[in-house]
Amino acid sequence: MNSPAPSPTLTVSPTACSTTCPLCQEPGGLLVAQTPLWRVVRVADENFPAFYRLIWQSHVAEFSDLDEAQAQACMRAVTTIERVLRSALSPTKVNLATLGNVVPHLHWHVIARFDWDSHFPNPVWGAALRELNEPAWTRLALALPDLDAQVAAALQRH
Amino acid sequence: MNSPAPSPTLTVSPTACSTTCPLCQEPGGLLVAQTPLWRVVRVADENFPAFYRLIWQSHVAEFSDLDEAQAQACMRAVTTIERVLRSALSPTKVNLATLGNVVPHLHWHVIARFDWDSHFPNPVWGAALRELNEPAWTRLALALPDLDAQVAAALQRH
Repeated sequence: MNSPAPSPTLTVSPTACSTTCPLCQEPGGLLVAQTPLWRVVRVADENFPAFYRLIWQSHVAEFSDLDEAQAQACMRAVTTIERVLRSALSPTKVNLATLGNVVPHLHWHVIARFDWDSHFPNPVWGAALRELNEPAWTRLALALPDLDAQVAAALQRH
Repeated sequence: MNSPAPSPTLTVSPTACSTTCPLCQEPGGLLVAQTPLWRVVRVADENFPAFYRLIWQSHVAEFSDLDEAQAQACMRAVTTIERVLRSALSPTKVNLATLGNVVPHLHWHVIARFDWDSHFPNPVWGAALRELNEPAWTRLALALPDLDAQVAAALQRH
């Protein structure tokens, strides 16, 4: 790990940056952990509070732009996040996705879903099905800073 | 490859099946290729004709239920499909996702997206943004049976 503790400093190499790509210019969320290959941020989404994003540090568009070792490192980290979410929150399901239609810089969404959440079983990009009476984060088994710390610690160990 | 040619016969072990899970009971699309670990089907979706699904043969819910070797085999196959879509169709973007909120049996969506498609840049699960004047499949660079054959051949080689 280059910088296991949360830090606002990005390790993106300037030569691998696109000057017009927001994920080359900004963290893309609350920085939780990073290595020279990837960073993990938590996304501020009131409907889906346990929403992490693994962002590849270099500006590549597609998962298949990674070589085999990079792809394995990427999915090992994604899987590590998923395991923490399962262990800490016992979600109904974990959703993984890399879309990038709007920002074609490789990033993976890792989202804990619950049968009580606003959209379940719809995808988070689909239609909402219900309104909650309280903020979604209050229904998680763990406070978000503690969850961030567990994700960071697991990524440091993995 | 256990059965590289398209075949309606599933290789799922009965002991790994759930009697109530549709992906344990049915192919889940047009079968394109399979091994003892996974099968690849093409999904009949008129809006997104170049839509493949890798379905894990055993009934597991989450990607992190796979061990390291299984996860690597899974993502190698997903990446192989993505590479064929990119090479054959030059899509604007490829979307990868494993959600499973409705059918919690591990399956990966691999979808070629185009800036002209009905939803782009929205996710396929989001709102449609336009209507096409002709069937989407007519705008692909390749006929779907030929695309299936390229996917099957690549999965056999990979």
